[in-house]
Amino acid sequence: MTTTGPATGTERLRRLNTAHVLRDLRGAGPASRSALAERTGLAKATVGAIVTDLEQQGIVQDGEPTSSLRGRPSRPVSLVRASRLGLGLEANVDYVAAALVDLAGDIVLTRTTPAGQQPLESVGDLAASVLEDVGERVAGACLAVPGLVDLDRRTVSWAPNLGWEDAAPGGELSARLGLEVAVENDANLAAVAEASHGAALDVRHALYITGTVGIGAGIIEDGRLVRGGGFAGEVGHMPLGRTDAVCGCGRRGCWEATVGLRPMLSAVGEAEHEDPTSAAGAVAARALHDEKVRSALQDLAVHLGHGIASLSSVLDPGAVVLGGYFAPLAPWLLPTAREVIDARLPSADRHRPDLRPGALGIEAAAVGAAEHALLPVLDGTAALG
Amino acid sequence: MTTTGPATGTERLRRLNTAHVLRDLRGAGPASRSALAERTGLAKATVGAIVTDLEQQGIVQDGEPTSSLRGRPSRPVSLVRASRLGLGLEANVDYVAAALVDLAGDIVLTRTTPAGQQPLESVGDLAASVLEDVGERVAGACLAVPGLVDLDRRTVSWAPNLGWEDAAPGGELSARLGLEVAVENDANLAAVAEASHGAALDVRHALYITGTVGIGAGIIEDGRLVRGGGFAGEVGHMPLGRTDAVCGCGRRGCWEATVGLRPMLSAVGEAEHEDPTSAAGAVAARALHDEKVRSALQDLAVHLGHGIASLSSVLDPGAVVLGGYFAPLAPWLLPTAREVIDARLPSADRHRPDLRPGALGIEAAAVGAAEHALLPVLDGTAALG
Repeated sequence: MTTTGPATGTERLRRLNTAHVLRDLRGAGPASRSALAERTGLAKATVGAIVTDLEQQGIVQDGEPTSSLRGRPSRPVSLVRASRLGLGLEANVDYVAAALVDLAGDIVLTRTTPAGQQPLESVGDLAASVLEDVGERVAGACLAVPGLVDLDRRTVSWAPNLGWEDAAPGGELSARLGLEVAVENDANLAAVAEASHGAALDVRHALYITGTVGIGAGIIEDGRLVRGGGFAGEVGHMPLGRTDAVCGCGRRGCWEATVGLRPMLSAVGEAEHEDPTSAAGAVAARALHDEKVRSALQDLAVHLGHGIASLSSVLDPGAVVLGGYFAPLAPWLLPTAREVIDARLPSADRHRPDLRPGALGIEAAAVGAAEHALLPVLDGTAALG
Repeated sequence: MTTTGPATGTERLRRLNTAHVLRDLRGAGPASRSALAERTGLAKATVGAIVTDLEQQGIVQDGEPTSSLRGRPSRPVSLVRASRLGLGLEANVDYVAAALVDLAGDIVLTRTTPAGQQPLESVGDLAASVLEDVGERVAGACLAVPGLVDLDRRTVSWAPNLGWEDAAPGGELSARLGLEVAVENDANLAAVAEASHGAALDVRHALYITGTVGIGAGIIEDGRLVRGGGFAGEVGHMPLGRTDAVCGCGRRGCWEATVGLRPMLSAVGEAEHEDPTSAAGAVAARALHDEKVRSALQDLAVHLGHGIASLSSVLDPGAVVLGGYFAPLAPWLLPTAREVIDARLPSADRHRPDLRPGALGIEAAAVGAAEHALLPVLDGTAALG
């Protein structure tokens, strides 16, 4: 007679070991069964059974045999491209986005469309059209939201730009799409994306700062997201801006009241605009021939550098990645910001973060959401469907 | 014929599994072999072999049989108290400290003595006297240092209060004591101690702030230390203090130029003192009957609260633990600091860190160092000696 307890234990162990093999193939590339056993520390028989199982599900494949100096030729096992996908979604004010990332670590698709009056409906439409093609291969889904996400309750506590308060967009999307949809903060997910697919691939510790109407941050430590109780990275209201600048939150001196999209546009005499990318494009074009615009950006860069120096003294990241409107304006912002960091960060002469523009643009959060959606499979907390 | 690769893999796996069993016994308490198998997800046979091995080494023991509803009575396996120890050391300006923590998670010993002219020699003397009694049971050692520690090079980049620059105290102590001595920043280790043995036992994310001549922080996220490139938590020079306050670093406005030990003593009209505990004791005694002292502390609490609000918006910890001189003065500092955090932290109405005095006093860093010294055994990167 067997009891259910140990059976559950065995099932759980099998899932964890499978996840271990998947992560290893993803990170270190194709390998023979015995090389996989060596790399993962798992027994050869265990690896063999897992690979057979994954082959039957179409998730891994055997490659051409390669000759070996010792004995039998070995066949490298590799991940099948696009066999299982994470679906990433983003709901924002101006646009909605979708992305697919596969188990092998490739970005398979990104798509962006304007948001309608109801961003949640728009992102649902976009998701449904993506799922038509790949539905049965999607292993998980996640929605990026510009706001405070309550992970325990799986709700959006507050997303002022979308007008959401204590909303449950994940539940609504799940009901419509017929699959579980997790919810995460957009800056956190953009940080995940830049660390796994973008500008911070080469560092273990990264800080991502998004420059939109609000200023948010995502923190990556040793490849993992630092979230605290869920609201970590809400750096826009740190008192690091001009002391007299009035913030949308009613306080004075908040960082985003000086370096957010609106004060930037106002400083360079540009009309209000909520889309960071096109707003930055217009400013970048003017900066080329307008000394006043360049000077306003320099001034802003000083405050940007001040804030980054503070954040770096707390977190000591290897790289600071600037997203949102900061990325297109990087040539006018980065040199001055770097000088301020050097002057203000006590450990700058020993370890200084490398300041970089983001590489993934507006799709960063959706790509990060797709990556995040694969996490339960890659850490063994969910079974492969 | 076997190759060395898989053998290494097997040995590594055995070590990881052993570590898994040790962590489980430590965290969840005594359990029968089959309960251990369920809790860890390891096979019963694997758990049986590991327990037998640990029994032979005197690290675990079988308890009295307890009757079971199903079949044979089971004997709970438990960790033997003080069978293997982590040795924690601290070198500071006024004092040196040592602590022993065992695998079961108990603090077995703490000892503090005044530092001589050469703190490294003093801490070496103290360590040698502790090792006389327990030497063969020590599984690892770690030294806490008030300064910037370069983990890759295992050196102290800069410890101004000790006058160390690019020093290698770990190597010197290793040579003297005949065992490896890791080196870590004191605030980081105090954070580890408060999270594993002190005031932050009940939260997953904690921020520790040490109030000495310098202000440092240690960040715990999901039980792990957040270190960035190694200098994370160097929060004393964030521009969060009075804008006109001149800091020891030459800049103005640094947080520690307003809330560090020296400006606090100067604000209450107390003589300079480098020992935070006795300095705070004198101030606390005066605060009882001196309105001016209380008022100066209130003013300081405003700046303390401001800085903690900023740090909390970056990290969103469940608890903020105040060490050093802050702890004895907590009754005069915490109420005002809490009010400021409520007013300044945007997410305060949804999630607010609980502000608490540290529980471990001056020995926090040494206890954390002892805990840290056990880490290689508990995460399976080192074998049990």
